[in-house]
Amino acid sequence: MADALFERVAIIGVGLIGSSIAHALRRGGLAANIVVSDADPAVRARAATLGLGDEVAETAAEAAKSADLVVACVPIGACGAVAAEVGPSLKPGAILTDVGSVKGAVIRDMAPHVPAHAHFVPAHPIAGTENSGPDSGFAELFDGRWAIVVSENGADAGAVASVRAFWEGMGAKVDTMTAQHHDLVFAIVSHVPHLIAYNIVGTAADLEDVTQSEVIKYSASGFRDFTRIAASDPTMWRDVFLNNRDAVLQMLGRFTEDLTALQRAIRWGEGDKLFELFSRTRAIRRDIIEQGQDTAAPDFGRRTASLPTKN
Amino acid sequence: MADALFERVAIIGVGLIGSSIAHALRRGGLAANIVVSDADPAVRARAATLGLGDEVAETAAEAAKSADLVVACVPIGACGAVAAEVGPSLKPGAILTDVGSVKGAVIRDMAPHVPAHAHFVPAHPIAGTENSGPDSGFAELFDGRWAIVVSENGADAGAVASVRAFWEGMGAKVDTMTAQHHDLVFAIVSHVPHLIAYNIVGTAADLEDVTQSEVIKYSASGFRDFTRIAASDPTMWRDVFLNNRDAVLQMLGRFTEDLTALQRAIRWGEGDKLFELFSRTRAIRRDIIEQGQDTAAPDFGRRTASLPTKN
Repeated sequence: MADALFERVAIIGVGLIGSSIAHALRRGGLAANIVVSDADPAVRARAATLGLGDEVAETAAEAAKSADLVVACVPIGACGAVAAEVGPSLKPGAILTDVGSVKGAVIRDMAPHVPAHAHFVPAHPIAGTENSGPDSGFAELFDGRWAIVVSENGADAGAVASVRAFWEGMGAKVDTMTAQHHDLVFAIVSHVPHLIAYNIVGTAADLEDVTQSEVIKYSASGFRDFTRIAASDPTMWRDVFLNNRDAVLQMLGRFTEDLTALQRAIRWGEGDKLFELFSRTRAIRRDIIEQGQDTAAPDFGRRTASLPTKN
Repeated sequence: MADALFERVAIIGVGLIGSSIAHALRRGGLAANIVVSDADPAVRARAATLGLGDEVAETAAEAAKSADLVVACVPIGACGAVAAEVGPSLKPGAILTDVGSVKGAVIRDMAPHVPAHAHFVPAHPIAGTENSGPDSGFAELFDGRWAIVVSENGADAGAVASVRAFWEGMGAKVDTMTAQHHDLVFAIVSHVPHLIAYNIVGTAADLEDVTQSEVIKYSASGFRDFTRIAASDPTMWRDVFLNNRDAVLQMLGRFTEDLTALQRAIRWGEGDKLFELFSRTRAIRRDIIEQGQDTAAPDFGRRTASLPTKN
């Protein structure tokens, strides 16, 4: 593999993202050697069975040793500990990167552990499903999706270029931005949407006048779309909210302000205000489809006929 | 067609639901004769081109004349006017029904126009896509979905049985309940979810610090699921909120109360509270999939590879 991008890539944490990276590295022949590790012995055993790497290392430090690229694929709250563990093992010129959905807090926690002879280039692939664990990954997860590479003043240009090439090799399109802007953008396009999805599912489950069985039976009328998002990994999302607090609270404030205005329009029967908003939001859906960020098939292409017919 | 359920069915309003009913009537051979009508001449012309009925009537009154079953498939706000128009044309024993997402207000508006020699049985099929218009319908829309038939004290048992048979013929499973309970259940499983989807899309579009182009580019991280719902028909949904005001405001109050508690947990770093909710909501998703109300395929079975690659 003379034209592999990297001699040795270490993947720390083998959940949906880590296992998808392993599959995509193989698909592209991007690494001469892949080593994976995970804090959970059961996950390490499963990774070995699935053949996700050429090697399964017992510890993150061991995996990172002699790697050119170390990719931390762990929940945000565990990033600092991973950096502390792998930092001393990083060889000269090695690059440490991550995949976290929050960048400011990850930099705060990881950067101090990176030795001067190595580089830290934070990143965030905009891809995922509601599934978790080493079995949930697939090579195509990043195809055609965006990956954000954080590039700030003082970053090593060569290391940034390598991480960019890594994500292009995963099939992604790459954008660069500052950590602060990243955290604001993803508070509104990802974090607040997840929070309100979790919230409405919780509210519906707690009602007295409507049974949980009714909520489930009639969920196709809107509710079920929220439950997909609200089935995302609880640890990952707890850490997102704890670590992007300021931007999330800021965007949540805007959301609540707008919702209160809608509530008032409903109370006072102001149909024109409702109609104006409901027309405007349609155009945004159109743009998302035109830019290839979602399918145009009605109902996401789901067909009732393809569902199990129990009940 | 000796075994058709109905001699003549009139469909008033040929949008997504009306055109899907026409397709499903034909598929099942459920009506010897289908007549469609729409207030919009362009839609009537399109219905004729598509061959959605055996006849296209100029007016609702003309369509309803001599029909055994008249199905009003119009936005809730137009239901009263349709009933006023078709009421005098209803033949003895004819059944008038509707498909509206709110039942209390529809009964208030339609029932007074139904002559004593005819029957009014309100209904609500739990099916739809984000698309509208006479071209968006398809015969399978109701297959395996629920349809609610309102049955209250004093309803004619034969007429209720006919409307039940009609929906079973459409491929649906039928439940009966009172109008009041219906409106409460759908406020939480459908109306409030639509409202918060419209709201978050509006909030995101109005930000100063995050551009609309960023919102669209990175929408796969959660936001895009909401935009599908927020692309639903603006007239239909305006009417839903204006006509199910009390139940929507009641459920919205619960939602906001719960969201405020979550916001507080984020502000004070109470990770345990977040984790508890995020774990609980996962179980509900599991139940929805087990009961055949959604696909288990990750990401609704969307694959990035199937999307256009414009950019």
